[in-house]
Order: sequence, then structure tokens, then C-alpha cells
Amino acid sequence: MNVEVVTIGDELLLGFTVDTNAAHLARELASAGVGIARRTTCGDDPAKIADAVKEALDRTGAVITTGGLGPTSDDLTKPSIAAIFGRAMKFDAAIWEELKVRWASYRWPGTIPESNKQQAFIPEGAVILKNGHGSAPGIWLEDDRGRWVAMLPGVPREMRGMLADELLPRILARATGEKTVVASLTLRTIGIGESALADLLGPLAKGPKDLPLAYLPSVEGTDLRLTTRDSSSDVALKKLREGAAELRAVLGPLVYGEGKTDLASVVLDLLRAGKMKIAVAESCTGGMLGARLTAIAGSSDVVLGGVIAYANDVKESKLGVSAATLLAHGAVSQETAREMATGVCEKFGSEVGVSITGIAGPGGGTAEKPVGTVCIAVSAAGALSSVRVQMIGDRDEIRRRSAQAALNLVRRALTAS
Amino acid sequence: MNVEVVTIGDELLLGFTVDTNAAHLARELASAGVGIARRTTCGDDPAKIADAVKEALDRTGAVITTGGLGPTSDDLTKPSIAAIFGRAMKFDAAIWEELKVRWASYRWPGTIPESNKQQAFIPEGAVILKNGHGSAPGIWLEDDRGRWVAMLPGVPREMRGMLADELLPRILARATGEKTVVASLTLRTIGIGESALADLLGPLAKGPKDLPLAYLPSVEGTDLRLTTRDSSSDVALKKLREGAAELRAVLGPLVYGEGKTDLASVVLDLLRAGKMKIAVAESCTGGMLGARLTAIAGSSDVVLGGVIAYANDVKESKLGVSAATLLAHGAVSQETAREMATGVCEKFGSEVGVSITGIAGPGGGTAEKPVGTVCIAVSAAGALSSVRVQMIGDRDEIRRRSAQAALNLVRRALTAS
Repeated sequence: MNVEVVTIGDELLLGFTVDTNAAHLARELASAGVGIARRTTCGDDPAKIADAVKEALDRTGAVITTGGLGPTSDDLTKPSIAAIFGRAMKFDAAIWEELKVRWASYRWPGTIPESNKQQAFIPEGAVILKNGHGSAPGIWLEDDRGRWVAMLPGVPREMRGMLADELLPRILARATGEKTVVASLTLRTIGIGESALADLLGPLAKGPKDLPLAYLPSVEGTDLRLTTRDSSSDVALKKLREGAAELRAVLGPLVYGEGKTDLASVVLDLLRAGKMKIAVAESCTGGMLGARLTAIAGSSDVVLGGVIAYANDVKESKLGVSAATLLAHGAVSQETAREMATGVCEKFGSEVGVSITGIAGPGGGTAEKPVGTVCIAVSAAGALSSVRVQMIGDRDEIRRRSAQAALNLVRRALTAS
Repeated sequence: MNVEVVTIGDELLLGFTVDTNAAHLARELASAGVGIARRTTCGDDPAKIADAVKEALDRTGAVITTGGLGPTSDDLTKPSIAAIFGRAMKFDAAIWEELKVRWASYRWPGTIPESNKQQAFIPEGAVILKNGHGSAPGIWLEDDRGRWVAMLPGVPREMRGMLADELLPRILARATGEKTVVASLTLRTIGIGESALADLLGPLAKGPKDLPLAYLPSVEGTDLRLTTRDSSSDVALKKLREGAAELRAVLGPLVYGEGKTDLASVVLDLLRAGKMKIAVAESCTGGMLGARLTAIAGSSDVVLGGVIAYANDVKESKLGVSAATLLAHGAVSQETAREMATGVCEKFGSEVGVSITGIAGPGGGTAEKPVGTVCIAVSAAGALSSVRVQMIGDRDEIRRRSAQAALNLVRRALTAS
């Protein structure tokens, strides 16, 4: 089964808004076995909306629109599409009552303006798609040949909720036996580049079991995504599982998780398993590593806190780094990183301490220690490890890569891998 | 002048990739006075590419495509579009030589595979658009009626470079006198919601001087964007400046900057102007505020560092918060926040100290202190201020709003506004 998607809005055409709805729709539909034949974006112009939707309807017979359902005057979707179906607009008293109730419950109360009344007009014969997260209801319109248009709001939160609660179940109920499901599985690796991964995988480099393999490098590492198209989710998942097992057998501890697993969560779980607490000592990342760890709900059971030691004085006074070490090796050195890590353990009474010191740039680099030089150390239950890494990218990338590399060094220390 | 954009790729249709190219293209074209009449996305299928491009060409006569120019087998754009123009593909020896040289300079050297040879085939009569950032050249194809298609690569870095260096100058050279420029100016506000802003602006709420005004709320505050369409950049900029001045006259210190100004930069500049240093004391944000300040290059001249005091013990031992205060008022209280702010000044010897303590959720809320309760304090040159705020959103949003609110409290303390 195929649909077309028409996203509506001057904001999209002018580039003020990046169309994240389109990608979300595509993923959700694909996982339900529904393909997108084409996607079209047009501005807030009734004639252009009508043209784009009519063409899509003629080609594919099934169209989802996003945008153009709000209270402001540029919202013209409903009447434009009603006209394609030869339907008039009619006032729906129930929608109007709901809008009034909703309005009254706002932080900024008052009477709903008459201009909002247009939200309560729907095409004759339309089915309402309830909006659990906002005011504008969605619309399902179908002709006697079974061709349909579903209109969703443009606000991502509202669109996502309505898609899951109302539209996907309705589409799935229509789907016949011929459906195919697109499913994917992602393995997350760290500490190895894209081409080295391909080298290491050898005959599996293009994918195991004829499953195409995509390499997706980012500041978090390189993700490996396997994709398959099958008759059912069960068949797809089985194939993906088998393919992932083949990759894992080669890659071992280079894989730290699947899907959207956050390396910080992996580290927190290892700390919990070892009944250990952690404290951080950050220079160039300035708190980013602490923020990563505490971004996970429930992290307070193993995260004590730490020191942001941006100035060298702070490295000495708050972490006990010796002046001699700073003088001999510099603030960006494995020696300093190691004293920061052991120092934060001592000062905070934690079993694990992790430190980062580096040159995030754009200034401050030298021939010996260019921008991107980062030293990381981990003290875990008395054992000390450290690395010096050359990070690539701009200041933000260098800092984010550093926090991720530090989490990985903790993971390796706690799993002895 | 109008063009249509066709973005090509299964990755886009399947939702694995968010189409950031589309927004970038739109903004760049708009600022050059070129409008986008419609945008279409299709998969890597020669027939579908040809259909979408031919329809766009028939409607608008000017088409930009992105994607489908790489070395892999799913790259079918060039022959599909050549066929629309009735052109054959021909081998270009110069392109092939360049590809070979480029390949030899890679980190992972070797001989270029024969399969890459297809990148050196171009349609007869095509003009090459040079690629300064990658291997695949772009293509400009034009018929005797002046209708044209420009093919750009899909990799954002390559697309952006080629657009700026090659395509925009070519399009501008064709544009006649009727060009209009779309320009915008954004004022950044914080500490006031969207509807309260509209209230405050009164007769200006829909925009000054007939310039439409958009309200763009985010975790950083509410941005106000004025947009205009004029005959030249100079005229547009003058109108925007006058409109912004009218808004500023009403909003005063609620406006902290323009464009993409980062509130952290504003704070750093105020610290520099006052010859003051800052230290942070963070509980629920876990380092995020420190990371915000140190994200700005050159921040080390005023940022000393700080303490991530996630555990209550750390608030006592590293910041000198009294056990009595914690017992009487709790860790999330203005009293604790104030002792954290003064404590970090004392411990770090800084003129300014800023603290955050709150309940980021999803757990930990009570009737009296629900999730989102955040207390912030600033000690600046001996004067102490604090607020208790009820933040909305999920854990990540609450933390990000808290860091931004803390920066704003520092700004207000340093400007006495």
C-alpha cells in the first residue's frame, strides 16, 4: 500500500522550518508497511494546495496532508481540499463547544475570539480525527471510489499524537494481505572509524545475509544500520536479529548498544551493577559530561557530581593536581588528566572518577598540541587508565566527541574490554 | 523568479534522513529574491525521478534537484533527466582524471574502482558545476527555450558549497529587474510567554509598519521574527530596522539580542565589561549551565568553573550549604539556591556565582514542589537575587529552560534590569 504526503506551509517553502514531520511520518508509515510514493511541499495558497492534493490523489488515491489547520488566517487547507471532493464546508457545533472549553482552560483565560470559529467548520461527510494535544481537529475525507485524504495539523507534537492515535489504526484497518513491512536495526559502535569498520567486517562489510548495511558516522560514534523489507514484522525482526549477531561476533565490545541506546545509560547501568558512584572532573567540556550523565532520569543513585575545572587554579585547588605536573606537562596532558581523575575520586569519595582536559579551539592550539588534542583519564576502583586522542571537527564537535569518548573509557574500565 | 526543487533519495522518503537541504536551499534562494513554487521528494527510481522533474519543468521551467549524484548504484538522476531533454550521456575524460587524482589523495588510498566511472558521464550539452567539497560534479542542463534543470549532490556540505559557488551566481545572472528580496530580522526575548508578549505589544502585536510578526517560542525564550519582501536588500533592511526599533521601545530589557545571539555570549560580554569572573553551582542541570558558558570560544577569560552538586552531601561539603537550610527548606528551595550561589563565589573566589537546584523529573515531584520546580540564585558583587520558577516540558526541556533562565538572571543582575 502506498500513500503520498503533502506538507503545507509558507514556513516550509521559505526554509524557516525544517520539515521534521515528513521524516517522522515516513518512519511510522514504513514500520506499518505503508510506503510513501512521493512527497510534495506547497505554500499557503488555496489554488496551490488544491493542485498538489488533486494531483497526488489522481496518482496514488491516498494522501496525507500536514499543516494548515490552525486558527490563523493563512489556514486554508480544509476548504481547498473539500472543493476537490465537491463538498461544502459546514459548521460543527460539537467542535465549537470543545474549542470553547479548551480555550477557557488556558493559562491566559478569556473568551475565544470569533476568528477561531473557522476551526469548527469541516467538509460535509468528513470524519473527525481527534486531537489529543491541541485545538485543531484532523479530518478524514473519502469519496465513493475509496480514495481518501487525511489532514493532520503541522505542529509536530499534535501531528505525532494524531497519527498514532487516530490515523495509523484507520489506515491499517484498510490494508490488505499484500503489505510489506520495512524494519531496521541499528548497532552503535564507538572508537573506530567508518572505513576501519568496513575493513574489520571484511566479507560482511556490505551487510550480512543480503541485508543492506548503512554506515552512519556522528559525534557519538558510527552506527551500523541493517534494513529489510518483509511480509511481516516477525520475519523482519528475525532476519535483523540474525544479521546483527553476525556483526556482533566480529565487532565484539566495539558495539555498545542498539537502536537509540545512550552511552551514558550504559555507563550508569555498569556503575549500578558494580555498586559504584561516579564523579567528573571537566576542563574543556565545561560540564557537558556531567550533563550527559544527569540527562538520564534516575542517575542520582550513582552520580555524585563533580568539578568544572576550567581555570588551572581550580585544577590545583579543587582537584589537587600538582603545580609541578601542570608545569612539566601542561594542563592538556595525560599526566594532568590522571591527577584530575584520582583527585575527584578523593575529594568526592567516589569509586570512579573521570576527567577531560583538552583544546577545543578554535584558538589555543600549538604544533605539539593542535586544536582537538584531548586527554581523558578514568580512575575506577583504584585502577587508572588514560588516553590522548586527536578529535576532529569544530569546537562543539570536539567537546561532544570528548564527552562521548570519556563515557567510553569509563565503559571499558568497568567491563575490562 | 520562481524555481521548483526536487529532492531525490529513498533515505528521504523512508524518513531515515531529515531533509535539511530543502530548508537551506529555500533560505539561500529567498535571500537572492528567488521563490520556491513547490518542492517534491521522490525515491531512487529512474521513472519517478523523470516524472517529478518533467512535471516541475512543465509547470515552472526552472528546477533544482538534490541527491542521486554519488558513486553508488542507486544514483540514477543524471540519465533520467538527460532523457527528458532528449540528450545522450557521454564520457567526460577531464572529470575522470579529476576523480582519479581525488581518490589517490584519500586517507585510504588505492586505485579508483571502475564502478566510479559512471560519475564521469554527463548529459550532452551539459555545463559542469564544480564541486569544491566532494567528488561528484553538479550539472546544469538547459533547452533551447531557456528551461533548465540544475543537479546538485545530496551531501549537505557539498550541496551548500556548490550552491554558493556555482549555482546562485548563475541564477542571479539570469534574473531580470523584477527581483524581490525576502529578508527577516529576529528579536530574541526571554522571561515572557507568547500571549503575554502579544498583550504587551498591543497594537504592534501583529507587526509594526505592516511587517508580519511571527512568534517563535522555544526553550530559549520567544523569538519575534519580522519578515519583508522588497525590491532590494537595502530597502528591506531599513524597514526591518525601523520595525525592530518600534518593538524594542515597548519591550525594553525583555529583548536580549538579535538573530542567533546566544544568551551565554551576552552574559560573557557583561562579565568582561565589569571585569568579573563567574563560577557555577549546578544540581538538576548537572553541568549544562557550565557547558553553555564554555561553549563560547574565549570564555576562559571570565569563567573559572564550578561545582556539579548533584548529591546533597556535595552541596554541603563543596559549597558550604548548611545542613540546617537543607533540612528546613529542602534541596530545592530559594534558600538552598542562595547558599549555593554565595558558596561557590567564596570557594572559587569569583565575583559572580550562579546556582540551579530543581526537580527535572519525571520522578521526584510532590504536591508542594511538582516536577518542573526550579530555584535559581545569583550572587553578583555581593548582591543576592533568587527566583522560583515552574518550568514546563520534559526532563530535557526543564533542564535547558533552567540553564537559560539562570543565564537571564545573571544578565539581569549585571544590568540591574
